[in-house]
Amino acid sequence: MATYNEVASFYDISSWELFLFAPIPSPAYELKQSLQAMIDQKTKPIGALGRLEELALQIAMAQAVTTPSIQDPTWLVFAADHGIARRGVSPYPSEVTAQMVANFLAGGAAINVFARLHQFALQVIDAGVAAPLPEHPDLVRRPVAPGTADFLETAAMTGEQCEQALADGRRLVEEHLARGVNTFGFGEMGIGNSSSAAMLMHLLTGLDLEVCVGRGTGLDDEGLARKTAVLREAAARCGDLEDPLEVLRQYGGFELTMIVGGVLAAAAGRGLILVDGFIATAAVLVAAKIDAGVLNYCIFAHCSQERGHRAMLDYLQAKPLLSLGMRLGEGTGAAMALPLVRAAAAFFREMASFTDAGVSQALES
Amino acid sequence: MATYNEVASFYDISSWELFLFAPIPSPAYELKQSLQAMIDQKTKPIGALGRLEELALQIAMAQAVTTPSIQDPTWLVFAADHGIARRGVSPYPSEVTAQMVANFLAGGAAINVFARLHQFALQVIDAGVAAPLPEHPDLVRRPVAPGTADFLETAAMTGEQCEQALADGRRLVEEHLARGVNTFGFGEMGIGNSSSAAMLMHLLTGLDLEVCVGRGTGLDDEGLARKTAVLREAAARCGDLEDPLEVLRQYGGFELTMIVGGVLAAAAGRGLILVDGFIATAAVLVAAKIDAGVLNYCIFAHCSQERGHRAMLDYLQAKPLLSLGMRLGEGTGAAMALPLVRAAAAFFREMASFTDAGVSQALES
Repeated sequence: MATYNEVASFYDISSWELFLFAPIPSPAYELKQSLQAMIDQKTKPIGALGRLEELALQIAMAQAVTTPSIQDPTWLVFAADHGIARRGVSPYPSEVTAQMVANFLAGGAAINVFARLHQFALQVIDAGVAAPLPEHPDLVRRPVAPGTADFLETAAMTGEQCEQALADGRRLVEEHLARGVNTFGFGEMGIGNSSSAAMLMHLLTGLDLEVCVGRGTGLDDEGLARKTAVLREAAARCGDLEDPLEVLRQYGGFELTMIVGGVLAAAAGRGLILVDGFIATAAVLVAAKIDAGVLNYCIFAHCSQERGHRAMLDYLQAKPLLSLGMRLGEGTGAAMALPLVRAAAAFFREMASFTDAGVSQALES
Repeated sequence: MATYNEVASFYDISSWELFLFAPIPSPAYELKQSLQAMIDQKTKPIGALGRLEELALQIAMAQAVTTPSIQDPTWLVFAADHGIARRGVSPYPSEVTAQMVANFLAGGAAINVFARLHQFALQVIDAGVAAPLPEHPDLVRRPVAPGTADFLETAAMTGEQCEQALADGRRLVEEHLARGVNTFGFGEMGIGNSSSAAMLMHLLTGLDLEVCVGRGTGLDDEGLARKTAVLREAAARCGDLEDPLEVLRQYGGFELTMIVGGVLAAAAGRGLILVDGFIATAAVLVAAKIDAGVLNYCIFAHCSQERGHRAMLDYLQAKPLLSLGMRLGEGTGAAMALPLVRAAAAFFREMASFTDAGVSQALES
């Protein structure tokens, strides 16, 4: 994959925004051997903590430290509407986007429950919701427009809108990084956005549209056939596209685009990214096409029940931590992985070594 | 599977201990339909929380309530030594059992880290460790003997020892139930105990010994072949055995037997049992052969890397929540599932319904 400076030079909208992103540093590969030795000295058989050991290594190298830690984990949940929703691609009406934002602000949604339980901060961002939203002190207002254009007819966004959404996602994350947050979950809410994510996946992976299109919030067979037909027609409008930003502009959503900006900024600041389900992974795919270095900072939390997610994870060579049959979005899959991520950092920092604890090591066979 | 009263009547050691166990109640099946309706009214597409929804239903029916909750979750980690360890079935010497108990008491083991992080109580029980243990106020002393007998030569336990261990496991759990604990993890430490667990699995499932025997804490190929040969010879000593308590007496360990007692007592008190890895599942298998009703209270936390665990879970028709490549014991796999169990109870209690939140439901297709 190209670096984003290379991409920017081909970017036919404008490249100013990309140059505002800081470069993404490499993980501290030079620490790998000593970190692994520290893990192997913990009072347990070699490798006995399985994926937690791999996670601890990834986190420490990402943070470039020998004392990995999870600081003020923060979930950013972006909400926006989609012009394509008018085509009957979801069993829910577009008004549900605004209704669910109100539910987030009232604390009644699944992600609110998990934020309280697992103790992470939750920020809800209006990235472009069509219906009016309630006044609320906790709502972060960054609406690009009242929903994207219908990508069956025209590009979902103008170049300016796409850049604005990238910049807003970047700036929000940079603010959190500046106050010490080092772990992010990105969630989304937007009726129609599994259609948008399926288009991004199809164009950027080259996989058949059928592999990429799923039931979203619960389409039946007839609905799934209709959604697939709509998206096939939409794909024909542009033909092949390679530039990830042009794909995003043509078929993306404002919430997806802000997540792309947020992911690039988090990785630039050595922030860990807990990757949620199908929609959030599509945003990570766009970010990874801009700079594959983001993947070093990604922890793939959960394989969603949504058709297409497994194939997209495979394309990214990502091994999700969990597979719980969830398909809700909002960052809920990522939320389920946070305790595992904390456990990985904690065992690394806190477990005694064989020497500390006076425990005998394995005998030679 | 038989009820334990039926088993007791065939039990050729003595049946007094079994009659001290309270009967295991049925889950509240009569609540199932109304509980499912409550889940379906939460502000999310039907089924979108996947396994968490199944868990919430199981927990509420087990607790026979419409407000499922996880109260004072408590891990009991039983440690004991095994006569079979002298046969070179583990890469670690028996002294490691006592050393690791000291590590538990000093707070330096993996399970200590996870107890602090995920906020559960941890009780460490000497069920029969061979080497001397440090004086420590937190150590619960219930040693049956300084390790079991070598089951290659003779029964691992006498009938009286087996009964004592069952009773101690039962009483410890009953004490916790009495003070309001409703969720248990059972962990173990005992060099040689994957051999004991493999024997229980082999005899109680009828699966080939090769399927049941694994690398434990990390045997190489040569060690694995030696362990398998030793266990084959040990199996020949008794031939086929059907009575789960006689299997336990012949080939079990004191820590395994206390877990069997603890599991039966927890289920009798409607306590949830978070089932750890290979060793703990073997104890649950014994308990389930005594009374299959225990399985209604079991949440299978993690599929271990230990060969045999997947087959044993399949035999029990158990779907583990996690598969993280762990193989440490101590209750660490169960610990990783506690946040998911809490999340299931929390979404059920705290999420808004469509009506509460004024969110539109799905349209007809």
